[in-house]
Amino acid sequence: MITQAVQPLLRTLRVLELGHFVAAPFATRVLADLGADVIKVEPPGAGDPARSWGLQIDGRSVWWSVHGRNKRSVTLNLKEPAARALVLRLVAHCDVVIENYRAGQLDKWGLGPAELAKARPGIVVVRISGYGQTGPEAAKPGFGVIGEAKGGLRYLCAYPPEVSPLPPVRMGISLGDSVSGLYGAIGALAAVIDQRASGTVEPRVIDVALGESVLSLLEGCLPEYSLSGKIREPMGSGIATAAPTNAYLCSDGGWLLIAANSDPLFRALAKAMGQPALADDARFVDNPARVANARELDRLIGVWTAAMTMDQALTLVEAAGVPSSKIATIADVAADPQYRARGMVTEISDPVLGPLLHPGVVPVVEGQDRNAQIRWTGPSVGQHTAEVLGGLLGVTPDELNALAKRGIT
Amino acid sequence: MITQAVQPLLRTLRVLELGHFVAAPFATRVLADLGADVIKVEPPGAGDPARSWGLQIDGRSVWWSVHGRNKRSVTLNLKEPAARALVLRLVAHCDVVIENYRAGQLDKWGLGPAELAKARPGIVVVRISGYGQTGPEAAKPGFGVIGEAKGGLRYLCAYPPEVSPLPPVRMGISLGDSVSGLYGAIGALAAVIDQRASGTVEPRVIDVALGESVLSLLEGCLPEYSLSGKIREPMGSGIATAAPTNAYLCSDGGWLLIAANSDPLFRALAKAMGQPALADDARFVDNPARVANARELDRLIGVWTAAMTMDQALTLVEAAGVPSSKIATIADVAADPQYRARGMVTEISDPVLGPLLHPGVVPVVEGQDRNAQIRWTGPSVGQHTAEVLGGLLGVTPDELNALAKRGIT
Repeated sequence: MITQAVQPLLRTLRVLELGHFVAAPFATRVLADLGADVIKVEPPGAGDPARSWGLQIDGRSVWWSVHGRNKRSVTLNLKEPAARALVLRLVAHCDVVIENYRAGQLDKWGLGPAELAKARPGIVVVRISGYGQTGPEAAKPGFGVIGEAKGGLRYLCAYPPEVSPLPPVRMGISLGDSVSGLYGAIGALAAVIDQRASGTVEPRVIDVALGESVLSLLEGCLPEYSLSGKIREPMGSGIATAAPTNAYLCSDGGWLLIAANSDPLFRALAKAMGQPALADDARFVDNPARVANARELDRLIGVWTAAMTMDQALTLVEAAGVPSSKIATIADVAADPQYRARGMVTEISDPVLGPLLHPGVVPVVEGQDRNAQIRWTGPSVGQHTAEVLGGLLGVTPDELNALAKRGIT
Repeated sequence: MITQAVQPLLRTLRVLELGHFVAAPFATRVLADLGADVIKVEPPGAGDPARSWGLQIDGRSVWWSVHGRNKRSVTLNLKEPAARALVLRLVAHCDVVIENYRAGQLDKWGLGPAELAKARPGIVVVRISGYGQTGPEAAKPGFGVIGEAKGGLRYLCAYPPEVSPLPPVRMGISLGDSVSGLYGAIGALAAVIDQRASGTVEPRVIDVALGESVLSLLEGCLPEYSLSGKIREPMGSGIATAAPTNAYLCSDGGWLLIAANSDPLFRALAKAMGQPALADDARFVDNPARVANARELDRLIGVWTAAMTMDQALTLVEAAGVPSSKIATIADVAADPQYRARGMVTEISDPVLGPLLHPGVVPVVEGQDRNAQIRWTGPSVGQHTAEVLGGLLGVTPDELNALAKRGIT
């Protein structure tokens, strides 16, 4: 149906990243993956501190190969006025600036939205911070884990206290940061649509806070609490309102997730278990009954899965058409045929690291060459300084040398 | 700096939602909150099944007041050809269609991207599904929990097996669905930017899969595994690479999250604890030492917090400038002064439910009237059928009556 190769969707967008760590760089990775020209400004020397996180090989961060991919890296020491002047000259060529300094920092440097809009009328400025740019807590430092706690999500990632006294788990990744990055990308694109439709010369300022981004995902928790006084409590591995939906141990040690919480799905599961009568058992005959007897139902399913390997159990449950999955490790992900078929686990070559696996570009754009979407892996610090300052601003090689000697780039 | 009220960013965008449950309606909520005209098509009668989820008051879902807000609801029975013809007539007035039927369903109904593009050249079609529109598993049913398991995130939401034998927790919300919804919104906006820049008449098809959306958040897990063979394992409430970052119990039963994992932050925390010598203790002198001795360090901090109430501990830790938060319940969220100051916890009036609290619009758009952003709460089923079919398509009241009698609306 698509008759010609689709060009990268965001090829008309240039984004300047004044970011570090996770949230802002994640927002720009999403935009870069969709074709935007992202220019990342980093301090000379070690660059973004996130480059030192996780596995390092030959002095190169493996995570960075993903986190920095498809971006151009320019070094500029923002503590130097001459570097800030160059930022403003770059902004003149950009549609969007994305930053995640602590609220107020860029303004102190003369790089607040008003100054950016002087350099580029109608500039879109996305600001990601722990608590937002305004309000009594605006100046407080925040990390992703703080946003997850403050946004009400961390509280729900636990077993009820009568089951386990352990504190709520961290979700294993910087979820608060990446969700904020997604909202930052949405704000950037929405503001660009507004700017292009209206031609406004005023800046558009998008103000993303970690805790607020997390809170926005909390379904009906807040209105339900306000009307009933009921606090949503953690439910461990199950769901309060639907059964069976839980994780069941198999004989080879993996957890099988089964979500059979409609009557037809439960009937199909009971049949697959060789116990079709369960679907007519008064304790399990409909969802309210199954929820009321969820512990016993989970026990019965767990007894059944414990007698089989993961492969055996999954084959039976899938053949019954019941939504299910192994709780996948990253090794399972790497081997997954569906991910491989869709380019979601894809082999890339990094100039230092050699061949390695990358997650593919999300979302899939039909008709686009998926192999070409990862144009390059995360660049080294300042890899594109000469290209960008020379190409966009006309800075000469001699001037570039002088800037480097003065510690500006 | 912003000299006049900023208009809703997406006021030039009209979106048709052929969605249900969580993922597609979440994507359209984000777009509607930013000003898009979202027309949600629901089956006549009970409408979207998500309307029956969670707390119900006077037959109205409380979650729905958020999940459906700012959208117009039109009933159309898509099993009827006449209803599908009306969908195509509506599409002619839209920029984007967002759907989350099982892969292939819309195509069977003659509502695939090619047909939609005949009705509206250049239409953007966002398709959200469990496994994606292509590949060997495309036809399989998927829920959010399946995507979380398949994407590798659920595995990380656990304690190490030597600490707890319990299965990984569910994150308490439909996280896989909402993250997919965010990617759907990003895809929609990026494709609109492309469409408006290129004037293409071909459809743009965005293909979002739940598991892939989750996988895209997994930091360096996949490339690190591919190079080292090391599988990222769950870490409970801590972080493998930084200490101290954990949850500590206070005397009144709440968990205090403290993230003091840089040397200056840890020195500030040790001082706040009245034990400044800890910062010079060889076991805790830098991050590698603290990670190696994290269990003892967590014990010492836990002993300190256990002797205080949450308020007492939080006051000391905040005064020291250390990132921290109570692990907030929804009651804490509702009372939070920062959220209140920024309109992130805001009182709304629903015609049936009366006054209730809503989460605010994310992201914040500077200069926009925040109270006006929530234009209305989730509508009743078909509340806008006459308004939309009459206003956009010129369907007369007599014709509307006939459509209703035939079970089409």
